Amino acid sequence: MAKVSVLGAGSWGTALSLLLCKNGHEVTLWSALEDEVRMLCEKREHESKLPGVRLPEDMKITADLEDSLQDPDVAVLAVPSPFTRSTAHRMAPFVKKGQIIVNVAKGVEEHTLMTLSEIISEEIPQADVCVLSGPSHAEEVGKGLPTTCVVSAEKRETAEYLQGIFMSPVFRVYTTPDILGVELGGALKNVIALAAGTADGLGYGDNTKAALITRGIAEISRLGTKMGARAETFYGLSGIGDLIVTCASVHSRNRKAGYLMGKGYTMQEAMDEVKMVVEGVYSARAAKSLAEKYQVEMPIIEEVNKVLFEDKPAADAVRDLMLRDKKVETPMLPWQ
Amino acid sequence: MAKVSVLGAGSWGTALSLLLCKNGHEVTLWSALEDEVRMLCEKREHESKLPGVRLPEDMKITADLEDSLQDPDVAVLAVPSPFTRSTAHRMAPFVKKGQIIVNVAKGVEEHTLMTLSEIISEEIPQADVCVLSGPSHAEEVGKGLPTTCVVSAEKRETAEYLQGIFMSPVFRVYTTPDILGVELGGALKNVIALAAGTADGLGYGDNTKAALITRGIAEISRLGTKMGARAETFYGLSGIGDLIVTCASVHSRNRKAGYLMGKGYTMQEAMDEVKMVVEGVYSARAAKSLAEKYQVEMPIIEEVNKVLFEDKPAADAVRDLMLRDKKVETPMLPWQ
Repeated sequence: MAKVSVLGAGSWGTALSLLLCKNGHEVTLWSALEDEVRMLCEKREHESKLPGVRLPEDMKITADLEDSLQDPDVAVLAVPSPFTRSTAHRMAPFVKKGQIIVNVAKGVEEHTLMTLSEIISEEIPQADVCVLSGPSHAEEVGKGLPTTCVVSAEKRETAEYLQGIFMSPVFRVYTTPDILGVELGGALKNVIALAAGTADGLGYGDNTKAALITRGIAEISRLGTKMGARAETFYGLSGIGDLIVTCASVHSRNRKAGYLMGKGYTMQEAMDEVKMVVEGVYSARAAKSLAEKYQVEMPIIEEVNKVLFEDKPAADAVRDLMLRDKKVETPMLPWQ
Repeated sequence: MAKVSVLGAGSWGTALSLLLCKNGHEVTLWSALEDEVRMLCEKREHESKLPGVRLPEDMKITADLEDSLQDPDVAVLAVPSPFTRSTAHRMAPFVKKGQIIVNVAKGVEEHTLMTLSEIISEEIPQADVCVLSGPSHAEEVGKGLPTTCVVSAEKRETAEYLQGIFMSPVFRVYTTPDILGVELGGALKNVIALAAGTADGLGYGDNTKAALITRGIAEISRLGTKMGARAETFYGLSGIGDLIVTCASVHSRNRKAGYLMGKGYTMQEAMDEVKMVVEGVYSARAAKSLAEKYQVEMPIIEEVNKVLFEDKPAADAVRDLMLRDKKVETPMLPWQ
């Protein structure tokens, strides 16, 4: 039994609050939006972002940030990535030394190329920043469908403590020390999801999509290992697992925006149609900058950028990917 | 321009014959079934297995095995895995020393636990046996949808020669020296596809399926590396790539049989309903034997076997997988 504050009442923050309540923890859910807090208190349901999922009466819901941070054992930061820095900045005065903060959003800050845990550590240097990631649509976690995630912390004991906090019969949690790898996988998968959606929109099949996923994670892994992360992580739940779920899913905004571009929409038309933030568009640019900075070949990321920002027709991008120089799949393996 | 014989006129053999014809090669397609040869010659279309895909007039189609093996540059063996040994045995007298044979079927022989290339090398010791594998539904290759595969041979020059033979603007081919890894990925993925289908049948979501795929390839990789294959291969096109396509696809018999079992069918009822060979059922048993022989923990494979052969309810198997001991995802990585 722990005291847990969840900051951010979007679909993921809300679903995790419910999971933590069911695990027997004392949960406070914070939102910056007064209207959202009022609606959640009255209806005990997030009507727009997690409809049909009932929240227990004993879950505390508040718009008071200081109040929500009264000495929790664990703070879960679940605001969308564009708000991570500003929220961390607001939290800082109320956070005690050594406070465990688990970030569950995904992204890379475009102008600094920092990961979200790096941003939080910069804004709240006294915190012990950890991450939770994996193939976990909030809608399905809200319904209690079996889900797996990975939690990463610098110290093994912290990771294992958090594993115990989150784990349940329908939510299996693994641990890993590779925070950077976990974050990069989550941040960059949306670019590949855009590409996979585009292939769907062009009328291509499962073969093409599986190729984009497999070669996509290969290039993310090439970049990530050069940045200091470990290849094993990209082939785990927070890497390929999350990428699979994003590319397969009807819930994914990135996949849908890509689909529309495959159908001939421009990037702006696709974003207008999807109406919500399409992280992949921002991640695409960040990924390209990282590829240049670390001098890594990322052909899929490069073609996605051309389609998004240089009006390259999507079909031409696929053709150019298929017709690249002949390659060895596993350049590290010896031949006879 | 090469002379290529394709042995086996199922959906995959037929689709590859067409691809090779379009690449400008001189192709002979052989089938053991006289009726099938007659139908293919008359209609220039495989009406039951690859409907709607037109075969060119200059593709030679024959039921004469010796005739089809008149000094080809490459022989492609595309018979279903239960017929690999018998077909190789029949071919042996007509095969010249050093003949390149590319096996494109997937499986492990249950009573010997041999891979298909090992079986072919045993039956035709004078051949140079190679393999082609990857996320490649024949139906989609037949329609010319963009597809990627990997070709593996002992010698780099052979692999690169075959890469040139198969590669086209819609069929991208990578090379790798890890024949065993390529074969094991293809053979064992069907067991995980059964599990993924079962999860679908139980009404679980994308999170559960992505978990089974990711943890499934992790256990296949654990086994494969102990057998001498390389982890990198399992995270490539012939491993995770092929697994993704199989688990996602409406074409997969294994996924469908699993789906029916998730709905409460027994294994036999599911197989009767699907009507075709469900390789995963046989591979499940072979995988379990391999896990025992090499002393590798394979929890998903183990639960699939219990559901298939011990009438364990599928929901109980999922629950037992979710509630296993708490684990580290990446046991090879160091903590601070």
